Amino acid sequence: MTAGAQARFLELWGEVVDIGAAMAVLQWDQETQMPSKGQRSRGKQLATLAGLRHAKLTHPNLGEALNAAAEDAGDEGDSMAQVREARRLVDRASKVPPKLAKALAEAESRGLASWQQSRAESDFSLFRDSLTELVSLQKERASCLAGKGSPYDALLDVHEPGTTESQLVPIFEQLKKGLGVLLDSVHNSGVAPCEDAVRGHFPKEKQLAFSREVITAMGYDIDAGRIDLATHPFCTGFSNRDVRITWRFQENDLRPALFGLMHEAGHALYEQGLSDADQRTPLGTAVGLGMHESQSRLWENLVGRSREFWEWALPIFHRNFPDKKDVGVDEIWPALHLAQPGFIRVEADEATYDLHVLLRFEVERQLFAGGVEVDELSDLWDATSEELLGVRPPNPAMGVLQDIHWAMGAYGYFPTYTLGNLVASQLWDAASQELDISSQVAAGEFCYLREWLRAKVHCHGSRFSTAELVENATGAPLSPAPFLARVTNMTEMAYGVEEKG
Amino acid sequence: MTAGAQARFLELWGEVVDIGAAMAVLQWDQETQMPSKGQRSRGKQLATLAGLRHAKLTHPNLGEALNAAAEDAGDEGDSMAQVREARRLVDRASKVPPKLAKALAEAESRGLASWQQSRAESDFSLFRDSLTELVSLQKERASCLAGKGSPYDALLDVHEPGTTESQLVPIFEQLKKGLGVLLDSVHNSGVAPCEDAVRGHFPKEKQLAFSREVITAMGYDIDAGRIDLATHPFCTGFSNRDVRITWRFQENDLRPALFGLMHEAGHALYEQGLSDADQRTPLGTAVGLGMHESQSRLWENLVGRSREFWEWALPIFHRNFPDKKDVGVDEIWPALHLAQPGFIRVEADEATYDLHVLLRFEVERQLFAGGVEVDELSDLWDATSEELLGVRPPNPAMGVLQDIHWAMGAYGYFPTYTLGNLVASQLWDAASQELDISSQVAAGEFCYLREWLRAKVHCHGSRFSTAELVENATGAPLSPAPFLARVTNMTEMAYGVEEKG
Repeated sequence: MTAGAQARFLELWGEVVDIGAAMAVLQWDQETQMPSKGQRSRGKQLATLAGLRHAKLTHPNLGEALNAAAEDAGDEGDSMAQVREARRLVDRASKVPPKLAKALAEAESRGLASWQQSRAESDFSLFRDSLTELVSLQKERASCLAGKGSPYDALLDVHEPGTTESQLVPIFEQLKKGLGVLLDSVHNSGVAPCEDAVRGHFPKEKQLAFSREVITAMGYDIDAGRIDLATHPFCTGFSNRDVRITWRFQENDLRPALFGLMHEAGHALYEQGLSDADQRTPLGTAVGLGMHESQSRLWENLVGRSREFWEWALPIFHRNFPDKKDVGVDEIWPALHLAQPGFIRVEADEATYDLHVLLRFEVERQLFAGGVEVDELSDLWDATSEELLGVRPPNPAMGVLQDIHWAMGAYGYFPTYTLGNLVASQLWDAASQELDISSQVAAGEFCYLREWLRAKVHCHGSRFSTAELVENATGAPLSPAPFLARVTNMTEMAYGVEEKG
Repeated sequence: MTAGAQARFLELWGEVVDIGAAMAVLQWDQETQMPSKGQRSRGKQLATLAGLRHAKLTHPNLGEALNAAAEDAGDEGDSMAQVREARRLVDRASKVPPKLAKALAEAESRGLASWQQSRAESDFSLFRDSLTELVSLQKERASCLAGKGSPYDALLDVHEPGTTESQLVPIFEQLKKGLGVLLDSVHNSGVAPCEDAVRGHFPKEKQLAFSREVITAMGYDIDAGRIDLATHPFCTGFSNRDVRITWRFQENDLRPALFGLMHEAGHALYEQGLSDADQRTPLGTAVGLGMHESQSRLWENLVGRSREFWEWALPIFHRNFPDKKDVGVDEIWPALHLAQPGFIRVEADEATYDLHVLLRFEVERQLFAGGVEVDELSDLWDATSEELLGVRPPNPAMGVLQDIHWAMGAYGYFPTYTLGNLVASQLWDAASQELDISSQVAAGEFCYLREWLRAKVHCHGSRFSTAELVENATGAPLSPAPFLARVTNMTEMAYGVEEKG
């Protein structure tokens, strides 16, 4: 009976996974391949699949199969974890009435269009009505999800299960303080690293060849993925054997393409590292966006911006960019550790990135606490930017309108970026205790680090929470200290503020 | 009430269309983009979507909505045609038990793998067990579909509604006779056209540039489509605004790429010419594969192999292939009108192509009539090839194993290729009565012919049967005479057998 109940439940669950994967294929196609005139029908196709997925997820058949499987699953092990994860997703889907889900989907479709226009014209008033509707519907959704709990916590939980506002506040306090000290210190140094080593003329095909060699060495399996150009870099997976990444480039700056591809390949290694046996089960997905971001940031920043990485990569760099044959690690490395407060999150360096996240977090908290109206958001944004980063956006396009997330219905999402940064540093320190990472990276032997991450994170899928994975892998709870120590150390070295090991 | 019943029915139908379109996206991706390791999960995703589509199509909700819409639809006009087409597809889906549909899907998945191996090793015995299972299941399916009618007719009807074996037999008799006379006549001429004009070195990018200029002139809207490389050329549409084609090429022969792309663009013009208002309704699809093939063959053969086309295309040909600057229409044209019996259908010229179709038709008829066992198929194939084409395949890979269709579950499919050839010639003659096609094509003014086809065929979607469309457009029922007359005339001219106008 046990096997039968579980098998029935997994069969139904597999269909939900398949519909989600089909949606991901259609979305990937939309971003990378679809002709412009295909937009309208693609919207309808995706809406139909989303409705089908929701119907399958909330169907009584699945509910009954899940209950039967739960009776047999016991209190631990994979069967229990499968039931727990499935129940979490079924409950969440069941809490949002189909009518509200449809209204949200339609509002997001309108929201994307008006946000695009609003940002293009840098006129917040063009987005105001859409945003008012979106925020109102999201508040309704958050209330449905939260029950008696905090609505904003319910939204945070969607993106990284278990995350709460009260956990995040002290973390961001420490970051704000630590990064503020760092920025003062480098500002007072009166100098800045020279960026010439990574600026100049980098032909598109050579950028791809260089980056591809790097991510192949990292272990990205191109026979289980592909690389395409897109407006925004992203990673998407349709199974652990089909994980695709996208890139963009600037001809005059190597960094966006290289670090963008290392970032997405970091995400892809997580997806490709999920176990075969968990595919199409509730355990066959990454645990949350924060843990996902830790993998991308680890490869992008802790590997890709290290001296050791460039010791290995330098000959490949010279081979692809012979103009730069006189450039060495001493020239490249400082250009990867800037600390320059700016307006745009996606262009921010490591020393300021999390202040941009904190900015969005502060504004969202007030929005969902009810203390601020949509009309006030642009002013609130600008004032908070001045407080945190010391710069006031010259227009709404460079301020509150800069990111797509609100328009596409992602609220409570941004903190996962910072969680990713913190977890990455903490994992790195733990890996360094067990591995000789420095010499391995300097030799291009990325397999040791990758397999360590596979064993500590990837292969577990959704078995454990992010907090459990961090504690198991590092022996300590999540903390901003390792991140702050490393960024401070690196940045101060790059600025020549003081000499550290 | 009328509007409500129809709206409800069309809403449910739109979901069926969307699932089908999503499947088509996944299949296109599989053929053109997917990494090799993605195959296994893609198979499951497609199977799940196929199951969902079948469930939606046979769901009582749709049946009731269809009945309500039927009551209000009356006996003519679009509402009636929508109900008629929907009922045809619902009935067909309902006749095949889900268990059988699943067994077929699984057998086809196994069949494709064993066919590939069997063809690669040219060993029929490796495909025999799979084929035996496939044929047995297809007979069961055909019986379900046919009820008291002929099982083979039921399979023919799937691909071109209304087609029957007894209609096809006299048509093929005439073709066999007429093409036999033609082949004797050119064989006795003792000469053959020289192919040097279209052989040599044609760089891939130039082949694409040349063909792209041609199909753009035909009216293929690249903003509502795209062109990709694939193992086999095909056309697929996800709506009338997203119609994609694929191509392949030989560096030493211009014909496969150019005529392949003109062929697929002919299919694409049909799909792009379906009306906006019919999208996501039962009328928003092409009427059948025979009519579809008529559009591709018309552009490939009647336009692309005409003297007038090459009068227009010659400067573009010279610009892309400067090596061929001394080649003129007199050299190119004969090389496009060969009559050389061979083993492989997809490589056959116009004078022998339909004999290959007849060969498959003869073998299938005997298979479904029960007069022949799977073990005997290879010998039967070879003997029939010798009778019809005068050549005996040296091995099964060049004989009965050459085509993928049986392995993927397409039985009763091949006659649509011949129907396409016949309809193309008949439409061409009718268009010639109304348009000055010769001078228009020679001037590259393809819009007149395209718009004529739009008005006579494309815009009607599934409103009328192929037989009705042919009769309305040409004033006569389907006949092989126009095709035979044209092919005979062109081929004999190319071989210098006799001079005709």
